[in-house]
Amino acid sequence: MNNLSLVLAESSLEMIPREIQNHSSITSHSKKLGKSPSNILLDNSWHYAAMKGIQNENKRGRPDIVHFSLLEACSIPLYFEKKLSIYIHTLDNKVITVSNNIHLPKSFHRFAGLIEKLFSEKIIESDGKKLLEMNDMSFSELIEEINPKNVVGLSRAGKPSSFHNVAKSLTSNSCLVIGGFQKTHFSDQTVSKIDHLVSIDSDSLESHIVTARVLYEYEKTIFK
Amino acid sequence: MNNLSLVLAESSLEMIPREIQNHSSITSHSKKLGKSPSNILLDNSWHYAAMKGIQNENKRGRPDIVHFSLLEACSIPLYFEKKLSIYIHTLDNKVITVSNNIHLPKSFHRFAGLIEKLFSEKIIESDGKKLLEMNDMSFSELIEEINPKNVVGLSRAGKPSSFHNVAKSLTSNSCLVIGGFQKTHFSDQTVSKIDHLVSIDSDSLESHIVTARVLYEYEKTIFK
Repeated sequence: MNNLSLVLAESSLEMIPREIQNHSSITSHSKKLGKSPSNILLDNSWHYAAMKGIQNENKRGRPDIVHFSLLEACSIPLYFEKKLSIYIHTLDNKVITVSNNIHLPKSFHRFAGLIEKLFSEKIIESDGKKLLEMNDMSFSELIEEINPKNVVGLSRAGKPSSFHNVAKSLTSNSCLVIGGFQKTHFSDQTVSKIDHLVSIDSDSLESHIVTARVLYEYEKTIFK
Repeated sequence: MNNLSLVLAESSLEMIPREIQNHSSITSHSKKLGKSPSNILLDNSWHYAAMKGIQNENKRGRPDIVHFSLLEACSIPLYFEKKLSIYIHTLDNKVITVSNNIHLPKSFHRFAGLIEKLFSEKIIESDGKKLLEMNDMSFSELIEEINPKNVVGLSRAGKPSSFHNVAKSLTSNSCLVIGGFQKTHFSDQTVSKIDHLVSIDSDSLESHIVTARVLYEYEKTIFK
């Protein structure tokens, strides 16, 4: 079977970390929502002041990147035809496995609510079917579990190519890796598990744009 | 100059209409936000109960569609190179002109805040530059103002084609029209101003996916 795995790697998706839970901008937002900080997604559009100076600041607090990239991947014929497996690897080594029949919430507040529930319960089911599952797992462990023939990572640090040529290189049982964060590059550990690191634009493009374009080109190679 | 105009037509973007402002789900949401209903974007993820049975229900209350479609259009080389003019036509005949250098908020709540401000003030400026402007204008009037050589509309009711062929048909000074709503088709008035109505997929695709794909294919025709 012709199947592609997509991994959004080192993604900006986590609950508000303990070290900043007492910051005034967090406590006021938490009070407004009526939820404990440990049950709220870290989001730099609300928590910017509290996030100043935390480790890996540029790779954190952007759940919208995961939301948009997932909406690109889960709203296309390739996904509807069940030819795409999707995984979200987070910066602190959790892996979300996305089922092949999810209707992702379009509204951000519903998406955030769903992910907050997932962080707390580790699994989201509907009518007895698993929609999302979260496990502690590193990027390396995930790649071992997927066990692809070929791992292609997209990064400005890679060898220049094009969306079309990247798509052509995704032969049967390939794994495509896209950064689920805003700035900087993949960590060395992530790069060490990638067979081909390629760059598809000299400028930096947003994760959701990269996701949309490469999946579209891939779809064209398999749906004649 | 090679330039393309993109119109998101009959878009699901409006403030909460007077007729439902006293519905309990509206008053409670309004109280929670500390804003008057007439200053809050109609959003079916919050106002579903109040929206039951209003006219054109299926074409309303989806500001996320405009947000996502704009993010597809404003985050790509075609836009960065100022070769794309963007207009949002709304279902109740307002037109938002998007400047060629806007950094659109990624977070939905900031986008909503910006659009609410635009509905109230009609113009958003930064450093003396116009970023967004809103005017009362019908789709027909907008097309007259753009004055394109060729108006191509994407609809499942159109003649079957492909993203690639649609992009090739967008010669100099063309106008591309995509529905900024969830369900159903363009109105007859809109269709009457479209020269070529084409369908790019037998299934219904979301507006943001259509926007991403056709602009990508167009970009490939002009950036060699």
